[in-house]
Amino acid sequence: MRIQLLNPNTCAAMTEQMTLVARDVALSDTQIIASTAQHGPVSIESARDEAIAGAALLDEIQWAKEQGVDAHIIACFGDPSLSAAREVADAPVIGIAQAAFHFASLISYRFAVVTTMRRTIATAQELLSRYGFSQQCSGVYASDIPVLALEDLSSHYQQLLFSDCQKAIDDGAEAIVLGCAGMATLCQSLQDKFQIPVIDGVVCAVKLAESLNALQLKAAKRGQYAAAYPKLFTGRYQHWCDR
Amino acid sequence: MRIQLLNPNTCAAMTEQMTLVARDVALSDTQIIASTAQHGPVSIESARDEAIAGAALLDEIQWAKEQGVDAHIIACFGDPSLSAAREVADAPVIGIAQAAFHFASLISYRFAVVTTMRRTIATAQELLSRYGFSQQCSGVYASDIPVLALEDLSSHYQQLLFSDCQKAIDDGAEAIVLGCAGMATLCQSLQDKFQIPVIDGVVCAVKLAESLNALQLKAAKRGQYAAAYPKLFTGRYQHWCDR
Amino acid sequence: MRIQLLNPNTCAAMTEQMTLVARDVALSDTQIIASTAQHGPVSIESARDEAIAGAALLDEIQWAKEQGVDAHIIACFGDPSLSAAREVADAPVIGIAQAAFHFASLISYRFAVVTTMRRTIATAQELLSRYGFSQQCSGVYASDIPVLALEDLSSHYQQLLFSDCQKAIDDGAEAIVLGCAGMATLCQSLQDKFQIPVIDGVVCAVKLAESLNALQLKAAKRGQYAAAYPKLFTGRYQHWCDR
Amino acid sequence: MRIQLLNPNTCAAMTEQMTLVARDVALSDTQIIASTAQHGPVSIESARDEAIAGAALLDEIQWAKEQGVDAHIIACFGDPSLSAAREVADAPVIGIAQAAFHFASLISYRFAVVTTMRRTIATAQELLSRYGFSQQCSGVYASDIPVLALEDLSSHYQQLLFSDCQKAIDDGAEAIVLGCAGMATLCQSLQDKFQIPVIDGVVCAVKLAESLNALQLKAAKRGQYAAAYPKLFTGRYQHWCDR
Amino acid sequence: MRIQLLNPNTCAAMTEQMTLVARDVALSDTQIIASTAQHGPVSIESARDEAIAGAALLDEIQWAKEQGVDAHIIACFGDPSLSAAREVADAPVIGIAQAAFHFASLISYRFAVVTTMRRTIATAQELLSRYGFSQQCSGVYASDIPVLALEDLSSHYQQLLFSDCQKAIDDGAEAIVLGCAGMATLCQSLQDKFQIPVIDGVVCAVKLAESLNALQLKAAKRGQYAAAYPKLFTGRYQHWCDR
Amino acid sequence: MRIQLLNPNTCAAMTEQMTLVARDVALSDTQIIASTAQHGPVSIESARDEAIAGAALLDEIQWAKEQGVDAHIIACFGDPSLSAAREVADAPVIGIAQAAFHFASLISYRFAVVTTMRRTIATAQELLSRYGFSQQCSGVYASDIPVLALEDLSSHYQQLLFSDCQKAIDDGAEAIVLGCAGMATLCQSLQDKFQIPVIDGVVCAVKLAESLNALQLKAAKRGQYAAAYPKLFTGRYQHWCDR
Repeated sequence: MRIQLLNPNTCAAMTEQMTLVARDVALSDTQIIASTAQHGPVSIESARDEAIAGAALLDEIQWAKEQGVDAHIIACFGDPSLSAAREVADAPVIGIAQAAFHFASLISYRFAVVTTMRRTIATAQELLSRYGFSQQCSGVYASDIPVLALEDLSSHYQQLLFSDCQKAIDDGAEAIVLGCAGMATLCQSLQDKFQIPVIDGVVCAVKLAESLNALQLKAAKRGQYAAAYPKLFTGRYQHWCDR
Repeated sequence: MRIQLLNPNTCAAMTEQMTLVARDVALSDTQIIASTAQHGPVSIESARDEAIAGAALLDEIQWAKEQGVDAHIIACFGDPSLSAAREVADAPVIGIAQAAFHFASLISYRFAVVTTMRRTIATAQELLSRYGFSQQCSGVYASDIPVLALEDLSSHYQQLLFSDCQKAIDDGAEAIVLGCAGMATLCQSLQDKFQIPVIDGVVCAVKLAESLNALQLKAAKRGQYAAAYPKLFTGRYQHWCDR
Repeated sequence: MRIQLLNPNTCAAMTEQMTLVARDVALSDTQIIASTAQHGPVSIESARDEAIAGAALLDEIQWAKEQGVDAHIIACFGDPSLSAAREVADAPVIGIAQAAFHFASLISYRFAVVTTMRRTIATAQELLSRYGFSQQCSGVYASDIPVLALEDLSSHYQQLLFSDCQKAIDDGAEAIVLGCAGMATLCQSLQDKFQIPVIDGVVCAVKLAESLNALQLKAAKRGQYAAAYPKLFTGRYQHWCDR
Repeated sequence: MRIQLLNPNTCAAMTEQMTLVARDVALSDTQIIASTAQHGPVSIESARDEAIAGAALLDEIQWAKEQGVDAHIIACFGDPSLSAAREVADAPVIGIAQAAFHFASLISYRFAVVTTMRRTIATAQELLSRYGFSQQCSGVYASDIPVLALEDLSSHYQQLLFSDCQKAIDDGAEAIVLGCAGMATLCQSLQDKFQIPVIDGVVCAVKLAESLNALQLKAAKRGQYAAAYPKLFTGRYQHWCDR
Repeated sequence: MRIQLLNPNTCAAMTEQMTLVARDVALSDTQIIASTAQHGPVSIESARDEAIAGAALLDEIQWAKEQGVDAHIIACFGDPSLSAAREVADAPVIGIAQAAFHFASLISYRFAVVTTMRRTIATAQELLSRYGFSQQCSGVYASDIPVLALEDLSSHYQQLLFSDCQKAIDDGAEAIVLGCAGMATLCQSLQDKFQIPVIDGVVCAVKLAESLNALQLKAAKRGQYAAAYPKLFTGRYQHWCDR
Repeated sequence: MRIQLLNPNTCAAMTEQMTLVARDVALSDTQIIASTAQHGPVSIESARDEAIAGAALLDEIQWAKEQGVDAHIIACFGDPSLSAAREVADAPVIGIAQAAFHFASLISYRFAVVTTMRRTIATAQELLSRYGFSQQCSGVYASDIPVLALEDLSSHYQQLLFSDCQKAIDDGAEAIVLGCAGMATLCQSLQDKFQIPVIDGVVCAVKLAESLNALQLKAAKRGQYAAAYPKLFTGRYQHWCDR
């Protein structure tokens, strides 16, 4: 099968890193097709960033749909524009936050989310609420670690991250969800250090996409995620007119 | 005071219509500054439309901020990109759905929302939930009336709309919120016909903006709506780099 | 227009103070008609006080209704007897807690309530829940400051109040709602000191009343707030028989 | 033990009827002390009635407290002024709605409430929500049967009542709570007719009061229900000053 | 009347102790019939224990049903297998947690639960949620006191218990529910020490059973608690085939 | 990897059928180890059945744990004794209802559950609530089809099932979850007939088990699912003493 791994920010280095992580867990006959947004912010850490990133994200979904991929993964922890992508796509679209929450709820009674910027705590809480996992989350933790700093984790930011993980465990977390696609490479070392399951959404999403494919479960395209009506788009989005 | 009335779709005719409605209720020293998105869909009726409209909406917010307006109104019933606009703006940003719900909850025990496309029912329900008005809403009704058809309301669509209003009242609604900025001109005739309060969000938002100004209540710019960090934007959004 | 500003306790000094505050923000053609309950407790700080104040509050609503006012404001933060007043009145009735919560939710993501007596914390939480603002409130704070002490704020009570505000901000509040009509005069100085929006319900209610009037939005008198049936009242309430 | 059975409306005939019902289930050493409000509406069917009845209700609670009763029952299905009564009283205060809901939830998975006036449906739903029984209630039914018509139940109103009970059962109710103190005498005949448990709050409250007494469980007078501070009351409530 | 007091663990000493407590509050014509599970764990402190105890618990319910008892009490704070017991029984079945919560909510605004093992905190919270009492509970406290240690309360465990009670009160509890059937004998001394109501579920359940009997309220056997269909049971449960 | 597929009822034919279904979707290096409860009901359709089945279910979990399996699947839609199994097991334990809900929520906005016995509707609703999927479920449907009748689906029961599916779709379901392990073989034909995704929990659980294994995600054994303390078990469960 072919899975689009879509990084909705414009940082190609992050796409590459995530692609390696994804390929590492994929089945041998799974092809990971990496996409990076062509326009927009270099990282998504606020509602402004998410709103600006929306159209370019859908451009990539549309492109991959035309390639006939079997599933799309939106590889940003806020699951930006997930509903819109599901309208545009024919194949299932999976957000990495949703994917991580699903696995966390399968293996623990209460899990924590440890993320980067304090501002994104509210975003994570809204996602937990929308997906129904609020009750199963023991807390969301963040210490203003910039997303791009994750690529070169200095000891200062590392200490902040360790401290958040420890606080989560002290508060009763039995597993930890990493709240940023850029944290995927830290997963194993945190698991080793804290001896509880640490969950990265990118690899979870890959396995869910493969599972849907194996089970021949298609995306529901009747109702809320039916294709939107064609209409007039103007200016820099006029290429959406004939879709 | 100066209020930006921002139509986030690209239909200038709808902007004009709303501007007339807004000016009609504005105080004599209130200046309504109309804005229309320069890029994007001609109407916003799906998650796809909302996602594509995001960046152009923020462009208009940014422009008005530079003009020093005292308040911004996002004049589309889904309150698209409201959080993002609040990050970008310094002045208060008001969504017309939120505004309409506020007034509806002041004058009735249970109100209904009557909107256009069935697909937007879920959007309205999510807004009601986010703002805390779910308990006070007796139902959301829609009969697949295209937004742009509202400008020239044929008897067919009119009958659908009348039928939804009647159903809402039969189900216990004591007031009706109109779920589309394009319905503003229908407000009075529906009120006359059904003899219950009918509420349009555009004019509600104007009065809330004027009220905030009179009370000298500024937008909270500490916490969730603080300005986002400057960062690199690429491609067609690179003008956001230096903001 | 004419707005009844109704103080449901019997402390005329508090009515006067609130009336000044209200007139200060009112439009030039708005007439504030002050009413003070003729019977009952000198302040409302418990469920007992609220229950005893009920009938006299409705007497004042009835009187103002007969004067033909365009809106009523119940100027006590617990919004006592709000539903009953809405049954009795023909014009809209606005509680100052509800009014303050509405404006707070427009300009912030999370607001706090800082009030007087610890016992009223539960009342405030029940109001937040009834109106749907629980999620948007970051906390309710009180330090047993007697309502009547607010008129002559000694440095001791002032310190308690400052301390509650600071605690609210430290806990994440982006704006503060003052939980007592008697706090209206402190609004500006707290805003100056803490540099976040501080919201008094009395002035909010005035602007909402004016807005409803400008929008010609009447109270819904069909359904839950329809006039109650005439019936026999005995004893000291027999004047209610012929209403 | 001595239980005050307090009818908060001024209809002495209803008090007498309820007292007979209460005595019928009371233990031999339980004394039922009937009280009728001295001032106020002859029946309580709206928020207006409830607000006006508040002070006279507390007068009766105060009187019984001075007599040293062991428990108070507020015998009106809306449980009016329950919190206020708990502040004033030293002994436990039980509302008949709460009492009925408790027993209904013990013997069924889902129960219905069948009451009198449509307007009181919302009151019943708010009580269910406040006490935590919303999930266990399959529906609230009413057909605008005046409370006082219950004393002389014509075949017209009887048919309405039967029809509501049947509808409740068809919707899945496994037991029925009667939503009015005046319905107590109908309990047995409805149970016989519909062959499911039919629950009247008055007798439930008597047994709960006796149970609390047998278990020597006192009312919590620390915290929310602590005695309110003495304060100045004026006008027709000045007798509350020295309490 | 005859009440089965069923201890679902196999510790006969605990049954005896509870039976004494129950008889102490029972009416003179109430017969307490004590039952102890014949198979299973000696105490129920985990989901494993509860699952293993299920079938033997139902055996005892079935036996008592054949004896024609008028009510069953499941005397373990987790209310294990309550729904199953209600299916099997013809008479009402009362869990002691549910019974205790009911009385706690009648006499206080906020109550705490103080229990034994930390692991059972989640169980208690799930019960509070299922029965609708979450809002009325100020907290659940536990300090890993083994159930069987309660019989011989050393000063160490006593200190842990005292400390939990004090913490609950400091956090705002107005009454305390004891979260273990084995704590019944501690009720009075804790009440004396802390001067707030302390509630044991066993005696509450006895009074509720007597109340249902006095009111002639039967268990609803239509709907969710109707008798399950007869079916084939194999192995050590084949005696259930012919029931 | 090795997955235990545990049928907690004693019907070996159903186990065989599910095993075929499971093997059909399993990866080539996945070994499905089928287990059937040795004691208990031949089908699980009520709380009684679930309670009696508990201990034998745990016996099978314990046996498979001793074999060193990598995951356990409880193949009964009520997810009976899931928490207990997680305490006993070292490897992850997956319930088929939970598994089906997860996949349904990934591919649709609103899904329905179509199950067998009306009595189990409440069970399904409680599971949806516990897992957090209530909001995403458009309804639970059942028409009293006996579980064992599924093996030989007569046209009568088939019509009932078809009718429930159609009703679910008319009510807005975008996907259907089959609410019984015995329905797995019907999945494809229903999907073909109704042209929307139809989801069987058994195969979903297999893919989730394989995914956890591929991601090396272990069960959280700290906190709520930690191993329960060893203790004395008597009678027919004394083999649990030394575990």
